[in-house]
Amino acid sequence: MELITQEVLAGNRRALARALTIVEDGGPEASTLVRQLFSHSGRAHLIGVTGSPGVGKSTLVDALVTEIRKEGLKVGVLAVDPTSPFTGGAILGDRIRMQEHTLDRNVFIRSMANRGHAGGTALATYDAVRMLEAFGYEIVIIETVGVGQSELAIAQTADTTVLVLMPGSGDEIQAIKSGIMEIGDLFVVNKGDQLGASKTASEVIHSLELAHLPTSWRPPVLISIAETGDGMPEVWNAVKEHRQYLDQTGMLKERRKAKVQAELEELVAEMARTNLKASLEQSHIQDLLGQVLSREVDPHSAAEELMQELFGNEQQKIS
Amino acid sequence: MELITQEVLAGNRRALARALTIVEDGGPEASTLVRQLFSHSGRAHLIGVTGSPGVGKSTLVDALVTEIRKEGLKVGVLAVDPTSPFTGGAILGDRIRMQEHTLDRNVFIRSMANRGHAGGTALATYDAVRMLEAFGYEIVIIETVGVGQSELAIAQTADTTVLVLMPGSGDEIQAIKSGIMEIGDLFVVNKGDQLGASKTASEVIHSLELAHLPTSWRPPVLISIAETGDGMPEVWNAVKEHRQYLDQTGMLKERRKAKVQAELEELVAEMARTNLKASLEQSHIQDLLGQVLSREVDPHSAAEELMQELFGNEQQKIS
Repeated sequence: MELITQEVLAGNRRALARALTIVEDGGPEASTLVRQLFSHSGRAHLIGVTGSPGVGKSTLVDALVTEIRKEGLKVGVLAVDPTSPFTGGAILGDRIRMQEHTLDRNVFIRSMANRGHAGGTALATYDAVRMLEAFGYEIVIIETVGVGQSELAIAQTADTTVLVLMPGSGDEIQAIKSGIMEIGDLFVVNKGDQLGASKTASEVIHSLELAHLPTSWRPPVLISIAETGDGMPEVWNAVKEHRQYLDQTGMLKERRKAKVQAELEELVAEMARTNLKASLEQSHIQDLLGQVLSREVDPHSAAEELMQELFGNEQQKIS
Repeated sequence: MELITQEVLAGNRRALARALTIVEDGGPEASTLVRQLFSHSGRAHLIGVTGSPGVGKSTLVDALVTEIRKEGLKVGVLAVDPTSPFTGGAILGDRIRMQEHTLDRNVFIRSMANRGHAGGTALATYDAVRMLEAFGYEIVIIETVGVGQSELAIAQTADTTVLVLMPGSGDEIQAIKSGIMEIGDLFVVNKGDQLGASKTASEVIHSLELAHLPTSWRPPVLISIAETGDGMPEVWNAVKEHRQYLDQTGMLKERRKAKVQAELEELVAEMARTNLKASLEQSHIQDLLGQVLSREVDPHSAAEELMQELFGNEQQKIS
């Protein structure tokens, strides 16, 4: 592990790929790697990009990478794709579009499989970002598919969250009204050459006016055609303006503190989960499961018993 | 709490509404209620309905309720809607379509807000189902918006999971190929009067043929027009056939055992999370947070220290 750490810091791309696989898998190896590289992380600006399937997120990320490269900045991309709880494979198809960047050594693109449950995937994302930062990437883009709760949580591991829509995204506008999309720092109506793009943008602006935004930042609403690059310089500029806002208001520190807090909560939850999983085969835990199934013990009481069992004092152990 | 329990069992709809609010909020009150009503739960067949925004899930659920009512069965519907981490309000708009059932005392429809993180929402769903079962509903439909990881997890709290698509749902078919939609026990291409419905159905069938399905159940792929009720008797029949399959193969018991296991894991994780949140303001925990922010301590080491602190033996406590 010491070797991988050194190689990542030395700029070895293969070592980085290996490090990403390790943190994706989680477990003690991942923890060791994070411990060794943590002091080299925290340097990049993190951009989260999310939106419903079909709005053109990947194309937009691709075009954004092109903009960022014009300034000579090194970019890492993590695409967190939906995967099966059974097969664990990531959708790699649309990553093929990013081929134009594959020869650029200052761009690194990685599709990440998720860990089967939302919390675990968010944790893997935090750690994967650290690997990219330790390697030297100055901008990291975290792309998530879908606008579900966990996907938004993953996008929120970023400093700046970009929500991508397309003309006629009525459901998303509904979501803005209801508040789910308040977390966007920047809204982009992509496929801007399609009918109704400016109408959709106006609707977003209107919804945002009605929303109770948590800070004084007014999210810009932009129109882009990622396919041709139209509007992309404006998107990149808006990201930079948001970064400036975060720096000037002290919000960056505040956000990062909130993220550390969220990560620690998730890590503690994950440890409890892992601990239980490791003990599941024990006969008295199987007995308890059986009692819940036969409705003799309710799940809440069973969970309390398990917590006591897994983490309580020695004297209080049931076994 | 004892009173609410009695009133729910006596069939008081107001008490049921109150009970649902309590389990939605979580905490000790919810646990008490679950303890009191748990022995009366587990009786209903649970149907999960999920799919991307715009495929017509709500209309389909509405039409399914109509089918189920024809057989005189009592139906409860839980619609888990996306909500803001800030405002906490649920999208109620499309529930208005269900008005035709509002005068039917044997139908109960409830929009549930989510709890801000995926695990918590799944837990609230388990408990809300129990309230509906204790009240006497024989079928409970759990509708979730979106096909994100957490939304699928919520749909999977059901016995039978129905995945709703519409003509041209290319991204979803991609998702089936990659495995995320393997969890569907039944696929419905809704809006069957739109162009390409049978092509989409064929694509789903083809994708399922290529997928490694976890059981011997071959998920039926149906076409419906929920708006007019076309194809809905077939959907309801397929649900019943799936229930029969689950009963005959012993899979129902197996699935319910797996669900109890998943719920206990989530409850234990939630307890760890709650414990940490309750202690966050303590100065030495704030110090630890500060050390992570200044990169003196990495998050994995900090989480281990916190676990020891929160659940370790008295002697090992830091404070």
